[in-house]
Amino acid sequence: MSAALPDEYEALRLRIRAFIREEVIPAEPRPGVSLRRADRVALQNQAKAAGVFAPHVAKEYGGLGVPIGYWPALFMEAGYSPIGPAVLNCMAPDEGNMHMLGQIATEAQKERFLRPLAAGEVTSCFGMTEPHPGAGSDPTALSTRAERVAGGWRVNGHKRFISGALNASFCVLMARNDAVEGEGVPAGATMFLVDMDTPGIRVGNDLHATDSAIEGGHPHLHIEDLFVPDELVLGKPGEGFAYAQVRLGPGRLTHCMRWLGLAKRAHDTALDRANSRELFGSPLRELGVAQELLALNEIDLETSIAITARTSALLGEDHRAGEKLSSIAKVHCSEAIGRIIDRSIQLCGGDGVTDQLPLAQFAQEVRPFRIYDGSTETHKWAIAKRASSRRRREIEAGEKPLDRVDPEGRSPRGER
Amino acid sequence: MSAALPDEYEALRLRIRAFIREEVIPAEPRPGVSLRRADRVALQNQAKAAGVFAPHVAKEYGGLGVPIGYWPALFMEAGYSPIGPAVLNCMAPDEGNMHMLGQIATEAQKERFLRPLAAGEVTSCFGMTEPHPGAGSDPTALSTRAERVAGGWRVNGHKRFISGALNASFCVLMARNDAVEGEGVPAGATMFLVDMDTPGIRVGNDLHATDSAIEGGHPHLHIEDLFVPDELVLGKPGEGFAYAQVRLGPGRLTHCMRWLGLAKRAHDTALDRANSRELFGSPLRELGVAQELLALNEIDLETSIAITARTSALLGEDHRAGEKLSSIAKVHCSEAIGRIIDRSIQLCGGDGVTDQLPLAQFAQEVRPFRIYDGSTETHKWAIAKRASSRRRREIEAGEKPLDRVDPEGRSPRGER
Amino acid sequence: MSAALPDEYEALRLRIRAFIREEVIPAEPRPGVSLRRADRVALQNQAKAAGVFAPHVAKEYGGLGVPIGYWPALFMEAGYSPIGPAVLNCMAPDEGNMHMLGQIATEAQKERFLRPLAAGEVTSCFGMTEPHPGAGSDPTALSTRAERVAGGWRVNGHKRFISGALNASFCVLMARNDAVEGEGVPAGATMFLVDMDTPGIRVGNDLHATDSAIEGGHPHLHIEDLFVPDELVLGKPGEGFAYAQVRLGPGRLTHCMRWLGLAKRAHDTALDRANSRELFGSPLRELGVAQELLALNEIDLETSIAITARTSALLGEDHRAGEKLSSIAKVHCSEAIGRIIDRSIQLCGGDGVTDQLPLAQFAQEVRPFRIYDGSTETHKWAIAKRASSRRRREIEAGEKPLDRVDPEGRSPRGER
Amino acid sequence: MSAALPDEYEALRLRIRAFIREEVIPAEPRPGVSLRRADRVALQNQAKAAGVFAPHVAKEYGGLGVPIGYWPALFMEAGYSPIGPAVLNCMAPDEGNMHMLGQIATEAQKERFLRPLAAGEVTSCFGMTEPHPGAGSDPTALSTRAERVAGGWRVNGHKRFISGALNASFCVLMARNDAVEGEGVPAGATMFLVDMDTPGIRVGNDLHATDSAIEGGHPHLHIEDLFVPDELVLGKPGEGFAYAQVRLGPGRLTHCMRWLGLAKRAHDTALDRANSRELFGSPLRELGVAQELLALNEIDLETSIAITARTSALLGEDHRAGEKLSSIAKVHCSEAIGRIIDRSIQLCGGDGVTDQLPLAQFAQEVRPFRIYDGSTETHKWAIAKRASSRRRREIEAGEKPLDRVDPEGRSPRGER
Repeated sequence: MSAALPDEYEALRLRIRAFIREEVIPAEPRPGVSLRRADRVALQNQAKAAGVFAPHVAKEYGGLGVPIGYWPALFMEAGYSPIGPAVLNCMAPDEGNMHMLGQIATEAQKERFLRPLAAGEVTSCFGMTEPHPGAGSDPTALSTRAERVAGGWRVNGHKRFISGALNASFCVLMARNDAVEGEGVPAGATMFLVDMDTPGIRVGNDLHATDSAIEGGHPHLHIEDLFVPDELVLGKPGEGFAYAQVRLGPGRLTHCMRWLGLAKRAHDTALDRANSRELFGSPLRELGVAQELLALNEIDLETSIAITARTSALLGEDHRAGEKLSSIAKVHCSEAIGRIIDRSIQLCGGDGVTDQLPLAQFAQEVRPFRIYDGSTETHKWAIAKRASSRRRREIEAGEKPLDRVDPEGRSPRGER
Repeated sequence: MSAALPDEYEALRLRIRAFIREEVIPAEPRPGVSLRRADRVALQNQAKAAGVFAPHVAKEYGGLGVPIGYWPALFMEAGYSPIGPAVLNCMAPDEGNMHMLGQIATEAQKERFLRPLAAGEVTSCFGMTEPHPGAGSDPTALSTRAERVAGGWRVNGHKRFISGALNASFCVLMARNDAVEGEGVPAGATMFLVDMDTPGIRVGNDLHATDSAIEGGHPHLHIEDLFVPDELVLGKPGEGFAYAQVRLGPGRLTHCMRWLGLAKRAHDTALDRANSRELFGSPLRELGVAQELLALNEIDLETSIAITARTSALLGEDHRAGEKLSSIAKVHCSEAIGRIIDRSIQLCGGDGVTDQLPLAQFAQEVRPFRIYDGSTETHKWAIAKRASSRRRREIEAGEKPLDRVDPEGRSPRGER
Repeated sequence: MSAALPDEYEALRLRIRAFIREEVIPAEPRPGVSLRRADRVALQNQAKAAGVFAPHVAKEYGGLGVPIGYWPALFMEAGYSPIGPAVLNCMAPDEGNMHMLGQIATEAQKERFLRPLAAGEVTSCFGMTEPHPGAGSDPTALSTRAERVAGGWRVNGHKRFISGALNASFCVLMARNDAVEGEGVPAGATMFLVDMDTPGIRVGNDLHATDSAIEGGHPHLHIEDLFVPDELVLGKPGEGFAYAQVRLGPGRLTHCMRWLGLAKRAHDTALDRANSRELFGSPLRELGVAQELLALNEIDLETSIAITARTSALLGEDHRAGEKLSSIAKVHCSEAIGRIIDRSIQLCGGDGVTDQLPLAQFAQEVRPFRIYDGSTETHKWAIAKRASSRRRREIEAGEKPLDRVDPEGRSPRGER
Repeated sequence: MSAALPDEYEALRLRIRAFIREEVIPAEPRPGVSLRRADRVALQNQAKAAGVFAPHVAKEYGGLGVPIGYWPALFMEAGYSPIGPAVLNCMAPDEGNMHMLGQIATEAQKERFLRPLAAGEVTSCFGMTEPHPGAGSDPTALSTRAERVAGGWRVNGHKRFISGALNASFCVLMARNDAVEGEGVPAGATMFLVDMDTPGIRVGNDLHATDSAIEGGHPHLHIEDLFVPDELVLGKPGEGFAYAQVRLGPGRLTHCMRWLGLAKRAHDTALDRANSRELFGSPLRELGVAQELLALNEIDLETSIAITARTSALLGEDHRAGEKLSSIAKVHCSEAIGRIIDRSIQLCGGDGVTDQLPLAQFAQEVRPFRIYDGSTETHKWAIAKRASSRRRREIEAGEKPLDRVDPEGRSPRGER
């Protein structure tokens, strides 16, 4: 129930804060340009030296071992720079893959895939999304197929929007499988660990999305007769949809944490502008036209921080409840982050829509977040359905329906 | 950092929940009608028997002694009925007065005022607000005056919107005082404990506000040559503005908690309607027109719960920081509560705007909350000012301003 | 294309404006109280004397004969008082009934029903809405039945929310009918003109809705073996759904016009408050917290006026196109009107939520408008469906779909 | 009052519509790339041949001579392609310069500047905006100075955000001047017609803004001892602020018209997607998650069209009233246009945020419109001030203030 961090993590937060301001922001590339790999590696080494690298990773794999309940404030400090999360090695899709590998992978798989990933030596991608009508907003529409063959699986399919794939060393690839009689494999989906230079997997055209914070673009992926041996199946075959949930709940929440940092940066930029400029003879900060926007920014920031912290604590205590709340947190934060950056642009006037300030690019970085990891509209649909089900169960358990009215229109409790 | 309640308080929450559903809701008066005092007392006795009475009050004064950090979930259960908080004796303005008396009053004052108030034997009011141009949105405009006289103070002034005054046994009255030389009393404001039958205090016309959950209306109060002896000064003379903050921070937050309960009730009513009705041949709950509203309700509820819980935890740890956040929580929750009830009305169609359902009255109950305890607009103004100050201090402490652009329009970091 | 009224109607507008301010506003009852019939009749006589009575009614029936394209500015002036439209005899449901009678009734029916209605001698109601699962948001769910009998029809059914029925002299009653072989009557709905004292029609319980501007409440109506002779069928039997459209398009638009007047009144009240009060040492009108609300009020008002004027002009030129646009106008105006009054309440602070000012009651008057005549949600659903159909027809007519993307993710027009 | 166009202009609208779809859209460059000048000229020749070129220009200068009241529907058709307005030669800043030259220039000036500009042979720019603290949101802060010298004026200053200047042949340059005794020149601002190759005017760094529809960027302009002879003063010296209003009112409105066309294109793209895709087993268009967005798009489009049409009609009849309304129209349309394109992106999912569809670039094209020609916030401030003044004048003229309450809280009209 505490709103404050334990001393140990508060000290780490302050170290990250200082590191981002002193080392990372001065090294940011021009708006719209991606960080070069060599520059990223150099900054990662500085982060290791400063004791701020990979806060979310278990200590045995080189991280700082912070439990998920304390991530929000740390990731938010990292996200104050668009390249901060990559420098601290807590950027998507790698961070989500590390989380999933940590929970599901065999020791051998962890050594081979998690260790170099956690160390920042390689990057990875997550191969789930497909072209229409395959897996998009509806993951169960998955159409890439894995067929049981001797000693492993043969995979065929077509993926799309595979963030990071242009640079990745390996992919966590998801495919649908039939039940395998005699092996206890249920029909469902299976996850595979696939080196990107394996024959049968080919990176296609990049979709040029509006963001530039993720190294390795968002390309198509073509999978043609790809053979994956049994030892590279991640977890149990047929259980892939459940594993995807393990990844998606925290995955969408860490996006909230990181992008809230960027939203804070935009808001601070706007506050600086409001403090330094005059309009119609008054400091901008004293004009109501500015105050309304600044207040709304603060409200959006603090409510987003609160719901993220609560969901994060819940994910550490009751994963299923946390997952449900993460859906609400994702919608609120992604929309709030977009609004905060948009208002900050308004407050900076013309400079906000040019490359004189990075704000227009910040808006481009976060725009897709309202779509990926489940669009706002898809989540709303799921949220409404879950609420209806919850209430139906309450009624079935004996609660009195609250919406009943008299068919003849008599006033309720007319006797009083 | 835990999102869950400790077992002891979770059990209490479930007791409150059951008590509200089984005893309180069936006893609710017709929409727009206030609970009769005798009915309230009877229900309070049931609440005492059920072990749910006065959860926020110290055990020595007959309460359950729950720390403020755990109030939100409990008060929200109480607020599921508009009369629930009065029955549990945690309704405004009494609850805020109990809190302040518990923190500031002398032992003798506690015995005389807090004990019967905590027991539900009497009710109270808080005399701060005044007619324009006195203390309204701006408490420092206080114009009621207290003059030092032998053995006490003589008070003159005119109050307004004094919730509960028609029924109250005593008033916590606030007046401006000059510095008193030789007694170490600074110029400022002083709080007085005044029995309502004291000569010199008179209840005036009631302002008929849209709500009916508070016993005792919102009348004017006329104070003419009221004498208050020294032993009825609450705290130290001249420190009243600071004490008002002690009351206002938690006070506005407990409003959030209680009204969130009512918003939840409205939302559950709408969910029942969406589950039981068909439109254009589909269950209402499967129509997007309904799903959008239900999802927005859930998002508003959960973000409000999250910011209330966070602020509540903070108030228990760092009162000053909690107070600042309570301003943001108040704006978000009061607006969200209004929206939730409004959407629930829409979902119930015609029944929503008649007395067939209590929703239209719920909307009336919560409407003033966007105005009292600081209107949305006043809080936004304060929130923006605090944000500007916070950032100016950061810049003065050495942070680099983020809004600077090149006077000639050269691109930043053009070298990359 | 002119934004201004012709001189003749501009003069009428100014007369209405003066009449409302000088005669009607001073005669308004206390908030929440309905105008007494005798007071209404007296004011109607004054309106006749002032040449402002029944502007929308044909001159031969005692009105001023203004074409529908010029109604908006006139009805809005009338609506500046909540009782103004009743005094000018252009209030719902009478105004919509006059419009329909004028277009569909026989000369004999006009003499018997339209003439006294237009003169303000009697009032009327419109019997369409039914208890669930009958005709509500979906008129085609009509369940009241008319059965062909010798010389007329026998009607049975149950109506609800029949505004004005407590006082009405007659009802335009809608019932479903089977096809009548040999008489050329199609299966559909039929409209009947029914005197309210006819045996077989009985007014039931009133639903106490939040508004008080309509005389005669919103009661249930019970129809039991009601006989209606052929000469009291309105229009042709079986064509009732088409006639309902004739009524509903302009009907929802005249609601917009009238309630925009009330919204203007609330906004003017807020402007007066912003001009007369100071807060934190500045005139309220110069505080950004107020300016934001005032500007949003202006924008909501002017866009509502513009879409109402455009729809009104269209209804006079191309009824079908006007009807479609009226759906959009209804959603925009009903929501905007609600927002304007709500913001005006905020600007008036505590006074806004008491009976010291009429604003809280204004909010209650307009609240149901977001539900009746098709709720916001139902209209949105219809608007989206119409837009989809419109675009599908364009595609079928040869337009190139705009949403196509390359399955392999190649950039469009990559050659440039 | 007619909502329809006269036949002649309706025929022109249909010609523009067909020309844009058949000739212009297929010639659009890739998202983010500006149209090459040669391609533009070729398309302009096609437009001339098709009889759709320069609809707003007087016939004597090669245009179609359409009065401003009929522009909205025509410009909106042109704007259905981001390059459409340039092809029809009705793009900013040229269109606004043509309008101003047509109203203010001498015959000789018209021959020299307006004729080639109207013919599409040259382009132009408008030199008003300056770096902070010069003329930005507050034009009266103009700091570029014109000094009276023999036979003309000497100008010094620094401009910024001068759209189109990289390609322009001439600039309409604005500078502050002192009063000139004996010549009847008041202190104020003066407009100059300046060939861009005149010594003393130099194009500086381009600000890379998010849009690409305007040829010639948004660079700085440095003016150093620029001599302008008397015959190149536009209108009368010292009257520049009034002329700027002549330009700004219609200027901001034609932006609304053009960008509404682009918003319509985005909406049609979303409708096509909703019609062609399935999600969770239903056509997307039947899912409420999509319907909500589509309906809001329609409402935003139609209210924007209505307020634009009304303002446009008013500008033709009463320029001053039109100018005031244009402020409201600008805020509503610029915000609505942004929302429509944003929602269309959501409806197209991942494709919406890549270059597979042009929608992300459309969002970039229109983003600055919420800032230039007066930001939303600046206009709101002005709108609120004008509303306050309007109401103060009404009160001064004898209207009764509506906000007065009884100091003792007595209910109004308590006698009823």
